[in-house]
Amino acid sequence: MTDAPSALFALPGDHDALELGPDLTPRFDTNGLITAITTDATTGEVLMLAHMNAEALARTIETGIATYWSRSRQEIWVKGETSGNRQHVVELRIDCDQDAVVLKVNVEGHGASCHRGYRSCFYRAVPIGGSIKDVRLVNTEATTMFNPEAIYGTPHGHKE
Amino acid sequence: MTDAPSALFALPGDHDALELGPDLTPRFDTNGLITAITTDATTGEVLMLAHMNAEALARTIETGIATYWSRSRQEIWVKGETSGNRQHVVELRIDCDQDAVVLKVNVEGHGASCHRGYRSCFYRAVPIGGSIKDVRLVNTEATTMFNPEAIYGTPHGHKE
Repeated sequence: MTDAPSALFALPGDHDALELGPDLTPRFDTNGLITAITTDATTGEVLMLAHMNAEALARTIETGIATYWSRSRQEIWVKGETSGNRQHVVELRIDCDQDAVVLKVNVEGHGASCHRGYRSCFYRAVPIGGSIKDVRLVNTEATTMFNPEAIYGTPHGHKE
Repeated sequence: MTDAPSALFALPGDHDALELGPDLTPRFDTNGLITAITTDATTGEVLMLAHMNAEALARTIETGIATYWSRSRQEIWVKGETSGNRQHVVELRIDCDQDAVVLKVNVEGHGASCHRGYRSCFYRAVPIGGSIKDVRLVNTEATTMFNPEAIYGTPHGHKE
């Protein structure tokens, strides 16, 4: 399998074909990537945001195991290979102009999708309605699901 | 208000401050943008994916009305100003490395967030488990919530 988009997916057609038709013609950006939003299949919670190149998208579709492109490591990234928290894709959606996908997943292992050990990467809330000068983030997950240092050897390792 | 990030938000600290601390220090990309995932506050459904510059993020926090940066129009974009489908932000979350946010919103008007008139931009499913050569997208929303041509004057107008 090559990561050249045209070798795996057809090129987009016109506006209506792209946005209303049945053909999967992803619009990869100048880095060859689309955006992937990963959600919990049961609760709908947004777990993480990542990216896919053509090969990662094709592998995700064909295997049902969430596979991304690691921008920091510049390699195909089967999420959870190190930590055991693999993501089984229950449903995949693509957006109107085909440059973003939503994955609905069940997470193996500890049930965590964040490299910090949290269930979701979005574990901090930004209070709404005040001045931005006064904003203090609020942690919404009381505990981590695993100890990142025990898994990765560093508390902030293995980040995409 | 200026859109120079440093004028609105403090710069990120070290790894631990950025990922575990209470300070909002968004990491804008080379275009001055972070990614915004918008979800329905009631159902959790992912409605759309868009971008925010510093000013859009600050306005969203201070007003509670979802405000983005339109990449195609290169301007601040209060979602729903044309269609009436404004988004009231119930909760805002930021991710581990502070380059993406999740908005949980209630949508006014028709209750639609897609310029095509659908409730969600992610109205097509990609079947999992077969060869990518055989993929045909499946529409998951039976009807649109409004007629884009009546609102925008064109069936594919007003796209970000």
